[in-house]
Amino acid sequence: MRVKKRKGAEAILAAHKDLVLTEPANWLESFGNQNSIHIEVGCGKGDFVLGMAARHPEINYVAIDLQSTVISYALDKLLASNLSNVRLLLADGRSLAEYFLPHQVELLYLNFSDPWPKSRHEKRRLTYKDFLQLYEAILIENGEIHFKTDNRSLFEYSLVSMSQYGMIFKQIWLDLHKDLEFAEQNVLTEYERKWADKGPIYRMEAQFVQKNESDL
Amino acid sequence: MRVKKRKGAEAILAAHKDLVLTEPANWLESFGNQNSIHIEVGCGKGDFVLGMAARHPEINYVAIDLQSTVISYALDKLLASNLSNVRLLLADGRSLAEYFLPHQVELLYLNFSDPWPKSRHEKRRLTYKDFLQLYEAILIENGEIHFKTDNRSLFEYSLVSMSQYGMIFKQIWLDLHKDLEFAEQNVLTEYERKWADKGPIYRMEAQFVQKNESDL
Repeated sequence: MRVKKRKGAEAILAAHKDLVLTEPANWLESFGNQNSIHIEVGCGKGDFVLGMAARHPEINYVAIDLQSTVISYALDKLLASNLSNVRLLLADGRSLAEYFLPHQVELLYLNFSDPWPKSRHEKRRLTYKDFLQLYEAILIENGEIHFKTDNRSLFEYSLVSMSQYGMIFKQIWLDLHKDLEFAEQNVLTEYERKWADKGPIYRMEAQFVQKNESDL
Repeated sequence: MRVKKRKGAEAILAAHKDLVLTEPANWLESFGNQNSIHIEVGCGKGDFVLGMAARHPEINYVAIDLQSTVISYALDKLLASNLSNVRLLLADGRSLAEYFLPHQVELLYLNFSDPWPKSRHEKRRLTYKDFLQLYEAILIENGEIHFKTDNRSLFEYSLVSMSQYGMIFKQIWLDLHKDLEFAEQNVLTEYERKWADKGPIYRMEAQFVQKNESDL
């Protein structure tokens, strides 16, 4: 998400080091419990994670973005809420392994990620194989990625990339908002609320498959 | 494809046993050459196979359907053409292994297959795992299925079913007719020509993955 830079964003974040982490963290200590950790890579202004956290107080959420401006807006919303199960992490997705232990994360969300449509930018897409490898390392065994987007090309690309990586699909939606049953549990992102009537929203639940020992 | 039964369809087919096969065949003998064999399971009135055969004289096509009426209409068109590289096979997809040798088929097409939307009919969908197993047996190693449909639910189901079977996706289109580059090679089916403007056409190229010997 591209947003206009916010003046003083860094100072705002620095004033809330308990909620906004910028360095490798002891998550157990930060949350004060051993609940499962779900993360969103590229959280934007945080509506999705805050909505999920309100519905699932038994889960700890870490919302990650590399732009201090959007993290500062997510912080505004977090401060205005009563939620104790959300932390914000200012970090580049490429460095995930520095912030989480192997198999520490139960579920990873990607929502409306930057499509990087040019071929020469393929490596920046959050479903490029190098990213999948990073996710696999921090996710539990048979861990899952739940991904939604309105970008057809990115979704096509991601299905192919994940399948070629060896992931399997548990469920796929090619027009999410037509699924009235899922609508009840679907927490909308800012972007999704704004653009949903322009075309279909795509969604998948994909799972890493444990390799046979004989393959290692 | 549901069509009104044609009177005398069986007799028409019986009069052209060289083109319409109803029993296990020696394909080498029937085609009179060793060219690669591509098949379409559920060929309907045959427009797709006839169009492909006209563009690819170096490939032998077998168009398969279980309804004698639609095969008889495909025969009308085949007889009106000058094509020598097409055979029609009146057979149930479930019996494919009786008609082809293991690894005899290079490529398998599924086009606008019956969606069988009710859960209790899942086993009838042509991308149900039992069918995939049949296809894998007659296809060459790392053989491919090229599948297109306008039915969103069937496409969602098929992506999941094929991925869980262990297949990988080489390419996916979630709105085929918007791909102007592919349009040049896209041979339309009767159904596709009629319904394409009602919504997106989905397409995939999926591949069986050779199992490691250590897994066997």
